[in-house]
Formats: sequence, structure tokens, C-alpha cells
Amino acid sequence: MMKPTLTTPLELAPLLAFGAHPDDVEFGCGGVIVRETSAGRAAHLCVCSRGEAATHGTPAERTAEAEKAAQLLGATLEFVELDGDAHLEIRAAHAIKLASVIRRLRPDILLAPSLEENQHPDHFRLGRLVRDAARLARYGGVAELRGSAAHAISQLFFYALTPESEPADVSPVLIDVSSPKIMEAWTAAMEAHASQTRARNYVELQLTRARLLGLRAGVGHAIALYPNDALVLDSLAQLSRGARLF
Amino acid sequence: MMKPTLTTPLELAPLLAFGAHPDDVEFGCGGVIVRETSAGRAAHLCVCSRGEAATHGTPAERTAEAEKAAQLLGATLEFVELDGDAHLEIRAAHAIKLASVIRRLRPDILLAPSLEENQHPDHFRLGRLVRDAARLARYGGVAELRGSAAHAISQLFFYALTPESEPADVSPVLIDVSSPKIMEAWTAAMEAHASQTRARNYVELQLTRARLLGLRAGVGHAIALYPNDALVLDSLAQLSRGARLF
Amino acid sequence: MMKPTLTTPLELAPLLAFGAHPDDVEFGCGGVIVRETSAGRAAHLCVCSRGEAATHGTPAERTAEAEKAAQLLGATLEFVELDGDAHLEIRAAHAIKLASVIRRLRPDILLAPSLEENQHPDHFRLGRLVRDAARLARYGGVAELRGSAAHAISQLFFYALTPESEPADVSPVLIDVSSPKIMEAWTAAMEAHASQTRARNYVELQLTRARLLGLRAGVGHAIALYPNDALVLDSLAQLSRGARLF
Amino acid sequence: MMKPTLTTPLELAPLLAFGAHPDDVEFGCGGVIVRETSAGRAAHLCVCSRGEAATHGTPAERTAEAEKAAQLLGATLEFVELDGDAHLEIRAAHAIKLASVIRRLRPDILLAPSLEENQHPDHFRLGRLVRDAARLARYGGVAELRGSAAHAISQLFFYALTPESEPADVSPVLIDVSSPKIMEAWTAAMEAHASQTRARNYVELQLTRARLLGLRAGVGHAIALYPNDALVLDSLAQLSRGARLF
Amino acid sequence: MMKPTLTTPLELAPLLAFGAHPDDVEFGCGGVIVRETSAGRAAHLCVCSRGEAATHGTPAERTAEAEKAAQLLGATLEFVELDGDAHLEIRAAHAIKLASVIRRLRPDILLAPSLEENQHPDHFRLGRLVRDAARLARYGGVAELRGSAAHAISQLFFYALTPESEPADVSPVLIDVSSPKIMEAWTAAMEAHASQTRARNYVELQLTRARLLGLRAGVGHAIALYPNDALVLDSLAQLSRGARLF
Amino acid sequence: MMKPTLTTPLELAPLLAFGAHPDDVEFGCGGVIVRETSAGRAAHLCVCSRGEAATHGTPAERTAEAEKAAQLLGATLEFVELDGDAHLEIRAAHAIKLASVIRRLRPDILLAPSLEENQHPDHFRLGRLVRDAARLARYGGVAELRGSAAHAISQLFFYALTPESEPADVSPVLIDVSSPKIMEAWTAAMEAHASQTRARNYVELQLTRARLLGLRAGVGHAIALYPNDALVLDSLAQLSRGARLF
Repeated sequence: MMKPTLTTPLELAPLLAFGAHPDDVEFGCGGVIVRETSAGRAAHLCVCSRGEAATHGTPAERTAEAEKAAQLLGATLEFVELDGDAHLEIRAAHAIKLASVIRRLRPDILLAPSLEENQHPDHFRLGRLVRDAARLARYGGVAELRGSAAHAISQLFFYALTPESEPADVSPVLIDVSSPKIMEAWTAAMEAHASQTRARNYVELQLTRARLLGLRAGVGHAIALYPNDALVLDSLAQLSRGARLF
Repeated sequence: MMKPTLTTPLELAPLLAFGAHPDDVEFGCGGVIVRETSAGRAAHLCVCSRGEAATHGTPAERTAEAEKAAQLLGATLEFVELDGDAHLEIRAAHAIKLASVIRRLRPDILLAPSLEENQHPDHFRLGRLVRDAARLARYGGVAELRGSAAHAISQLFFYALTPESEPADVSPVLIDVSSPKIMEAWTAAMEAHASQTRARNYVELQLTRARLLGLRAGVGHAIALYPNDALVLDSLAQLSRGARLF
Repeated sequence: MMKPTLTTPLELAPLLAFGAHPDDVEFGCGGVIVRETSAGRAAHLCVCSRGEAATHGTPAERTAEAEKAAQLLGATLEFVELDGDAHLEIRAAHAIKLASVIRRLRPDILLAPSLEENQHPDHFRLGRLVRDAARLARYGGVAELRGSAAHAISQLFFYALTPESEPADVSPVLIDVSSPKIMEAWTAAMEAHASQTRARNYVELQLTRARLLGLRAGVGHAIALYPNDALVLDSLAQLSRGARLF
Repeated sequence: MMKPTLTTPLELAPLLAFGAHPDDVEFGCGGVIVRETSAGRAAHLCVCSRGEAATHGTPAERTAEAEKAAQLLGATLEFVELDGDAHLEIRAAHAIKLASVIRRLRPDILLAPSLEENQHPDHFRLGRLVRDAARLARYGGVAELRGSAAHAISQLFFYALTPESEPADVSPVLIDVSSPKIMEAWTAAMEAHASQTRARNYVELQLTRARLLGLRAGVGHAIALYPNDALVLDSLAQLSRGARLF
Repeated sequence: MMKPTLTTPLELAPLLAFGAHPDDVEFGCGGVIVRETSAGRAAHLCVCSRGEAATHGTPAERTAEAEKAAQLLGATLEFVELDGDAHLEIRAAHAIKLASVIRRLRPDILLAPSLEENQHPDHFRLGRLVRDAARLARYGGVAELRGSAAHAISQLFFYALTPESEPADVSPVLIDVSSPKIMEAWTAAMEAHASQTRARNYVELQLTRARLLGLRAGVGHAIALYPNDALVLDSLAQLSRGARLF
Repeated sequence: MMKPTLTTPLELAPLLAFGAHPDDVEFGCGGVIVRETSAGRAAHLCVCSRGEAATHGTPAERTAEAEKAAQLLGATLEFVELDGDAHLEIRAAHAIKLASVIRRLRPDILLAPSLEENQHPDHFRLGRLVRDAARLARYGGVAELRGSAAHAISQLFFYALTPESEPADVSPVLIDVSSPKIMEAWTAAMEAHASQTRARNYVELQLTRARLLGLRAGVGHAIALYPNDALVLDSLAQLSRGARLF
């Protein structure tokens, strides 16, 4: 099967979101994906296991759920094999494999799980691998990557799947996802992972977090992203909103 | 003398920058002011002493320097009396006085010196007073402010006058000030404070800092601002630049 | 009028909670107060202004609301005059005044607003004054306090009125307030401050925060407190619950 | 040989303490183990090497020392083979192996070395593996663990073997170990590691640390533990002691 | 009475240590003072109250104790009146008064209590005032200081009176005070404050802290100082000792 | 080929600097190396790859550049094979290999890249391996190291190759490298890596950083080092310079 690329000519450069398990992107930042795809940006999800170590759901079920959810987010989807669910390790070969995905898709923006360690060990390890991959993708001499042109992304944002995994030392950027259309699509994409949501109130967790950020920002719901590198802006024109309602 | 207001109908809401001494805004974030005024945004500088405790320069000289510098930045200027240079204290009355300035000018964006304490004591105290003033300006029942309508700003950014005063726990936003026109106006505004620049290489300090940030961001020069509240954005569209050249 | 004391013989030593405004204790940690009073512990609220600078509500209305709310919490209430709403300053005389309240009531546990500065300036200043007062209350030679016996509290906990004022450098202790009776009394006490809740969704803010903590802890709702000093325990017997549901 | 289990019916759920070397638990938190076992709680030590890379002591000697020390602490003991002393690596297989120990023993409370990196590399790596193992133990689908029922612990506490390895970003809980009986048993258990204590004053290091914490807490000696997850409590009843003597 | 100066021509520039109470310097860093005076450096103690709010000791007794202790440290002593014990406030006038002391004595090195707030409120306030005073002492235009020549110190070190007041965000420098002569003089100077040491084991607290640092550094005893500004050195020649025994 | 040793009897104990790529030591702390070698201290560079993954320069070219640069710094050089450029992993075997280098050369001071993760992944991984290696080098029982005598270094300093990799939680020590002779040699050593400097302005980045530190310290140029362990000093004699010009 030919691997997907994102070559459709678009005004907005594509976005590439990594998840360690089939539902990570949806729960962690699904609303942001919808926000971007509904504005015409191409988004691609790269999922690094079939969730085979979870208490509920078979790999086949979870694959189907991920495909349905990606569609609801307006995104394309691929699976990349690393060490398997609950077995992910930090290996240079993994970072290089992810770098090859980056080179193929040539996104501007990457999304990856945050680096805080008190969460599922696959999450923060994937976050580290993606961060390293973003660097390796731009080095010209990595032997395994020689077939593809070097590519420098513009920004890597981390998303947090739980309150415990919110980075303590990076200021978040809150993305307003209040529009009913976005909220509906995001909620549907989370609920598409029915094998998981049956067991625990993951959806309520994420909606409560988003509502709390929304209350702070004076909007309906918001999702926090954590930039890996300092934001660079041309002026203050885009920055005149702050979360200071209370 | 009638106190200035910023009522000119503009598309961009006005910006209000506070400095403890006549040269603080210029040295700390002058390039950002130029960037905004050259885009048509009204900017007003509120200076809270005449710099009368400095080793060099009389209050009269420093007032004249500040007026010249403000003009070079494209900004208007006023002086507010608090406790005097090197004598600033944290008093509720000062915060309320600054809140009345905010209510009169009704800016979207505030700029103030950072809160880190290892710098001139007037700097971080003014930063705190401005932060508190931004809150008090929106409370309806403060007796001293009753004549004016409550006003909620959108965002408060801190600027750092020295490397030591850069906040350690807030992620900076880098504003690209590389355009030659901006750099010229900023440099001229700093050099307008001739009584100060004769004694120490303040200008070199700021240009070295801005060049270092520029190198990191892959541009000529940049200035770091530190948001007081989480940034709220409608989408990722404005965020696809990160400082990751090296 | 005779000032209140807490001399009823009780097995549990009394609790003393300080608020800068008539509704601070209720919004910040009202559920904890209910939890303690419903277990038979005496609780006393010490409110340091009449909320006269707020946009809504007269001092008389707010006093009445506070009295009703305290009753709903099962607590007694007194007002202490410091500098007035929105005018609080850090003064040794204030800390000594609060120390005299501590000496009169002789509590084991103190509750006070957190010290994070990005909130209403009265909040963090009161938190600092209470922390200092707890120290001064035990020093035998403070002239203004000579009429009363020195008293050492056992622990000071801070509560956070907003997400922004949650301490970043102290690990929270989560108090389970899930029982319907507690939640009802807490909610009623918050809603007793009708002049404030009409204007903004403060109640939703607090219930959303408590639900989010409850989700993390695997209970209904929880409130976070931040100890000023390291917890000292006799054994691990009381510590075998952690917030690790997700 | 049949692997040990902790099935004795007890009111207090069992405690499981991990050490990278035969003396780690004794030096890092031995007094806490004594405190718990003398209250009737079952405690089990899981040691992950024979200390074969140390300057002093053969594996056989160190095994014997560990067995004697465990007995003095009132705990049972087993050795688990990972990579060997000074060779420990972060591998998913190790975390899964430790998860199988957790599933077999089904403890409420785990103890593990802290995560700070400036200490023996085996220490912080084992701390990470235990933290990850505690998560994996509750996931139903991990293939290697299928024979055993999933188990969720209640709390994981880290202990610090040296001042350098005390976590900087977690508030400690101080356990009072002042009782002479506890101090005697703890000291004896440390001295049972005679091959190590001959070479360096490890015992003095730990007793000095415990005395310093005791002075702060107003007791004889105390040991600091660092919870991995926020403490959840039913009320303030257990929290009315704080370390605030000076 | 003529105020003391430190004009004796010495190879080592004088050291000036500030304390809020008569015993602060002795308990916080007395060993360092002895170390320096025994090497021929002039040291001067500036004490900012008579300890009149303490539970034990009259101002007259405490003055006599301080004089005896200073002599044991080999230091001169003066008292400066600010607001009185337990009443210290942050006022510009205080910082300027302390700046005038700095200008008179012209030290290279300043010592002051640390800035951490969870300690006696006079301690951290004095630390802030000294830090600000060190800045004001070098500004030429401060009206109150016009009679004296501006003076720039070289380094300000903070000392911590308790473990709670050790700065969390500054790396300490450990001064080896192991020589028996130093330890004897330091201990004697602490015990000279007999009114205080009768009531609590302050001496044991400090000796335990110093021994713990000594154990870490592989020496007998050490005292931690916390530099306010980055250390500047000509080479690595002086830096080849680190606290890495365990 | 016989491996190099540093047995020349010298007054100053030798220094050993590790780099992940052929130019890391030169860019990160070359000026410090020159400072030390020009004072007669032996310095040895241990480079852990040939830079074969970089966009520019062949391994042969880069080896030659490194040899020339080491000569300009007055240092000797060796290459150690680990996993290869862009492929470095944290393995116990690597730390042991580096420990064997430490045992052979028996340095007092180590230099290694900082541990901050947002940089080239080889950098922080090498920093961790060197830190662990410094510990393992002093343990007597590590089987692979049995042929060589245990060795305890005195201090490990980290250097930062970029602003992003400067440690946030360690106070830096600034080494004054202002002498023209040092600056010339350092600059020449950086420019010796011509394959790299052609592509990006690495030299300007480092000189700008050093000038900014120099401005703060009141000297020409300075380089920041970050000690791994608390500095231990005999007195304050070497510490009377602080970076407080502004």
C-alpha cells in the first residue's frame, strides 16, 4: 500500500499529530484538529500502536474506532509500528522512523503528547521521540533518511491527556474550540472510541478540562497546547486575548 | 493641562506602556512599540518618575530625552507622580492611580516591567502595581475610580530590562523587530537618552539581547515579551513560527 | 459587643478561615468547611472587608449574604477591619491584628487565600498577612499582643480562589467533599452570595474545578488545599489514597 | 521455589518497597518500614540486584546482610533480576516484570527510590520503572501479565537515599519515627549492611537527615516521603501536624 | 557617638553582614564570619532590632549577647533602627538607610537573610531591603545619600536561618568551616545568645545542618551561602571541589 | 595504537571535556579550555562521533577539523565510538565505556553537554552518560572496569551549546574569557570547523552569547558553566565577583 502524503495544494501548511494509542489525539487535542480541518488545513494522524495492552477493546476494534474518529475530525490516519502498546522505548531507530514520516508529510505544525512522566509511559516517550524526530528530520546526513529531502517544521506543540501530564514549566496557549460545530465533532470523535469510553468517563474528563479553560478564557471551551519553542510573531496583532476572566 | 486620551478611531486598540524611569520602555521594549505604531496602533507611554536618582542627567534633561524618544517611537507620553525615582513602594493608592490611567486610555494591551526582583527596585514594584491596576480598573465599586467607566484590558505583557529580570517561569513570546526601519527607530529612541548611554553601554546590551533572540528565531532581531495570562487564540494560524534555528 | 471565642469543649480543635472579601472562603474552600463542621469541628470565618469595591452588592447586602452563608456552612463569622476592599496593604500592624484573632480563637488549623500574585491583590496579601500572623501569634514579646497567651497553630493551609491562584510549587492535598449533604450545603453557601453570582458564573467555576479534581481522585468532587509546612504523620495509615484514576 | 505472596488477612493492606541494591530500602526509608510493620502491616522488600558493582562486599555477603536487615525491619524479602548492579536500563520488559510482582503481592502502598537523576543511576531508573510498573499493573491487556489479575495500587511514595536525590518539586510528607523501638530497629537494619557501613558513614548520613527533619517537626527523628500523586483525604482530621518548629 | 567605619588598610576587602535580630548572623552564617575574620578580613555586623518581640530576653540582655557574640566572631557590631522586631516593613526609606551603611563601610561582600517567605517575616524583608540597598548604594542621584560616595559591592550572599528558608532556585556555595578553631568560635558565638538557646535547640539545629552539608562535601562541617548574582571567576582553578561524596 | 593518558606531572589536575560531535566542545566551552590550557592545565577532548549525520562535512573532514581545533585550544583529542551521530542511546555499557576513559585520564574536572532535552538528542544523552560515568568510575566492583583503579573526579560542569540548552534550575558560574589571546584562540578553534560554520552562523551565536554574559559581568566576554554538584570552597576569597553590572 502506498503510504499517504499531504500534497494537496493548500494555503495552510499541513498539521501532523502523533498519538501513542488509537484514541490519544482525540482525547488530548481533538477539538484543535477539528478547528484546523474545518478551516481547510490538512491534518494527518500518526498512531503508534493498536492499543493492544488496554483493558478493553481488541486491536481490530480499536483500529476501526480510530478510523471513524479520524474521519469525524476531518483528518487522515496511518499507523506506525514501534514497540507495541505499553512497550514503547526510547530508541534512536524510532525517532528516525518518525522523522521519515515528517519528511514524507512535510507539516508545519506537529502535535505530540506531553513530556511529563507521571502518565502512561508510552505517552511521554512518544513525546520525546517526536521532539527528537523533528530535529533529525532536518539533518542532511542521517543515513536511514537519505532518500527523502530534509524538512524543518515550524512549531511542535504538546497536548496533555490528563491534568497530571500538563507541563509545569511551559506557558500554555489556549485554543478556543467553543463553536458548536467543533464541539460536536470533537465529542463525536471521542465517543467513537466506544471500547474505551464504556469503561471510564474519559469524555467527561476532557470536557470538564475544556470547560474549565473556557471559563478562564471567557469562552465556551478551550484546549491547552504547550509550545516546544518560543513563539515568534510579527506583531502583537494576534495576541490581544488573555485568559483573565476571574 | 488636560490629560491625554486615545480616542482617535483606530482599527487596532491602543497600547499603553508603563515605565518606572524615563528610559525604561525604550530600553526594555522600544522595538515592539515602533512595530505597533508603524502598523497604525496608537501607543502611549506612562512614565512614573523623572529619573532623578540616577547618577547622570537632571530631571529636566531626562524629561526632554523621554519626549524626544517617545516621538521617535511614534508614541505619546505622560508622566505620573508616584513616590519618585528609587522610592517607589507598593501602595494601594498607586495601583488605583494607575487604574485611573488605564480607565482613561482604555487600552487592549498593557506593557510593564517584569516582576523579577533582582533588578532596580522601582522596576518590579511598578510591574506589580500595573498588574494590580489592571484588575482594579475593572471593578465597579472602587470609590476613587467612580468617575470613570470600568475597563477590562485584554492582555498584559511584561518586558525585561536586563537578562537578570527575564521571568524564569513564563514562556516568552518573541516579537520580530528585524525590519531596518524598526531597528533604526528603536536604536534612535534608545540613544535619545543620551545622559544614560554616555555612562554605560545600555544600547549594546539591548541590541545584543535582541540579536541573540533573532539568531534563535532565524530573523535579524527580536524582543521577548512575557504574557501575564495564558494566550487565547482562535486557531493555530498565527502560531506557525517557533524559535528553533539551532 | 463581645468578640466571639471558640471555647465549646470539642474533641476536634477549632478551625479558623480567613477571607479578604465576604465570599472568599465560600468560593475557595466552602466544601471543606462543611466537611469539618458536619464532623463536629468548630469553624470560624474571619472576613477582612465588606466587599465594598466590587461591581455589585452594597456592604450591607454583602454582610447579610456572608452571615447567611456562614450559617449554611455551620460556621461562626466575624469581620475584621484592615484597609478596606481593594486597598489591602502588607503592614506589620495588620499581621499583629490577625495574630490577636488567632490568639483569641486558638485554632489548630488555619485556612487562608493562596500567595500566588496573579489574582485579586487583596487575596495574596491577606494570605501573606495570615502566614506572618501565625508566626507572630507564638512570639511572647510582641507588645501589642501582651494581653493574650501565645498560641502556636498546627498547620496553615492555603486555598485557591481561581485556577490562576493555585500554587505551582506546593503539592496539593485533595479533600473529598463528594457526600451529597456536603455538596448541597457548599453550593447553597456559594449561592447565598447572590449579588456576586448574578454577575458571573463563579459557582460553575468552583463546581467545575471540584469535579475535575474529583475525576482525578476517583470520587465525586474534591477541593485542593496547599499546606504551608510539610505534613507530619504518625504512619502511612492515613495516606493510602492517591489521585491516580487516569 | 514458590514466589512469596502476602495473603495473610490483615487490616492494613500490605506495603511493597523496591530497592536497586541490597541496602537501599534500609538507608532510604527503613524507619518507615519498621513503623508500619510494628503496627501490623505486612511489608515486603523487592531488591533488584545483589550490589555486585559496589567497592565492598561480595554478592553472597550482601544477600546475607539484606536478609538479616529485612528481618530486623519485620519485612519479607525477595530478589528480582533485572540488568545487574550499575547496569540497570529503562526497558519496557523490566517495568512489566515489576508489574508482575505488584500483581502477585497486591499492595496498597509502594515505596521506590526517587527520580532525581544526580544519584546512582540505578536508583532513579528503578524509581521510573516502578512508577511505570504501577500503571501497567492495572492495564488488562498486557500480554506478559495475562495470568494475573490487574491491580491498582493506592499510592506510590518515593524515598531519597541522599540529600541530592530529594525531589525539588514535590512537597514531602514527614513520617515520625521517633519511638526508641523504631529508631533501634532502623539503626540495626542499616548496620546489618556491615560491608557498606565500614567504608563510609552512611548511617550517620541517614541519622543526621532524620534528626534534622525531626528538629523541624518538633519530634525526635522523621523520614521524608514524596507522594507520586496528590494525597486524597476524607477530612482534615489527620492533617493537623505541620513541620513548623522554627 | 561616631559611627564605625572599616578603613583599616587590608588585603581583603571588608565584609558586611546584616541581621534582623541580635542572633541572626550568628545562627545563619557565624562560621563563615569566623572563617573570614581568622583570615584577616574585617567583618562588621549590622543588626536591625534588639529582638524585643521574642519570647525570651530583654533588649538589654540581647544587646549584650550580640556584643559578646560579635567579639567571638572577630567582628565589629552596630545596631540600626528600622521598625523594630516583628514590625519590619518594606519601605524605600529603610533601603536607603541600609545603603548609607553600605556606603560608609564600603564592603566587597554582603551577607543577608534569604528571601524565602516561610520564615520570620523580618528575615525575608530584611533580605529584600539589603538587596535593594546594594543597588541604591551605587546610584549617584539619591538625595538622602548625597553626602557619601557611591559604592558598588562585588557580591551579595544570602544565608538561611532554617531549612525552610533555604532558597529553592539558587545553587548554594558550601563554605568549609571544619577547622576546630572555627567550629569552636562559631559554637561559642551561638551559645552567647543564652536567652534564646535556653528555650529551643537552635544550636543543635545549626550544627546538624552544617554536619549534613559537611557529610555531603566530605568535610567536617559546611555552611551554605546563596549568591544573588552569577559568580564570575577567572578560571576553574578555584572550583575543583564539589559536594559529591554520596 | 596506545590510548592517550595524561600523566605529565602538572600542578593543575587535568581536565577532560566530552563532546557528542566533533565541534561541540569548541562551540560550547572552547574559551574555557583555552583559558585552562594557557594556564598550564592539561586538557583532553573526548569526542563521541564523527558528526556523520550532519548536513555538511564528511567524517574525514570533520575529524581533521576537530584535530586542528583541539590543537588551537591546546588540548589533546581522542574519539570514542558509541552509537554514532544522531543514534546515541542511554545504555549502561556506554556509561561504563566513558567511565573507563575517566579512569585512564584521572581528571579533576569534567565538562559535558547540558542535560536540557530541547536540543540535539545526542547532546543531552551524552551529558547523562558522562554524569553516570563519573559515578561508576569510583565504584570498585564494576566488572568491566576491573583492570583500572577507581577514580573520583572533583567536579562535573555542564556547558550549553545553545540558549535553549542552558539549564533552568542550576545557577551558572561565569568564566571570564576576555583576554584577547583567549578570544582569538577560541574563535580560531570554532572557525576550524569550516564545514559547519559555512552553513550557519554558529560562531556569531556563541560570540553573541559570550558578549552578553560579558556585559552582565562587566568584562569583555564570558562563558557560563553549570556545576553538577554544589561548589565547595575554603573561604569567600575567590568569590568576590558577581555579574551585577546592570
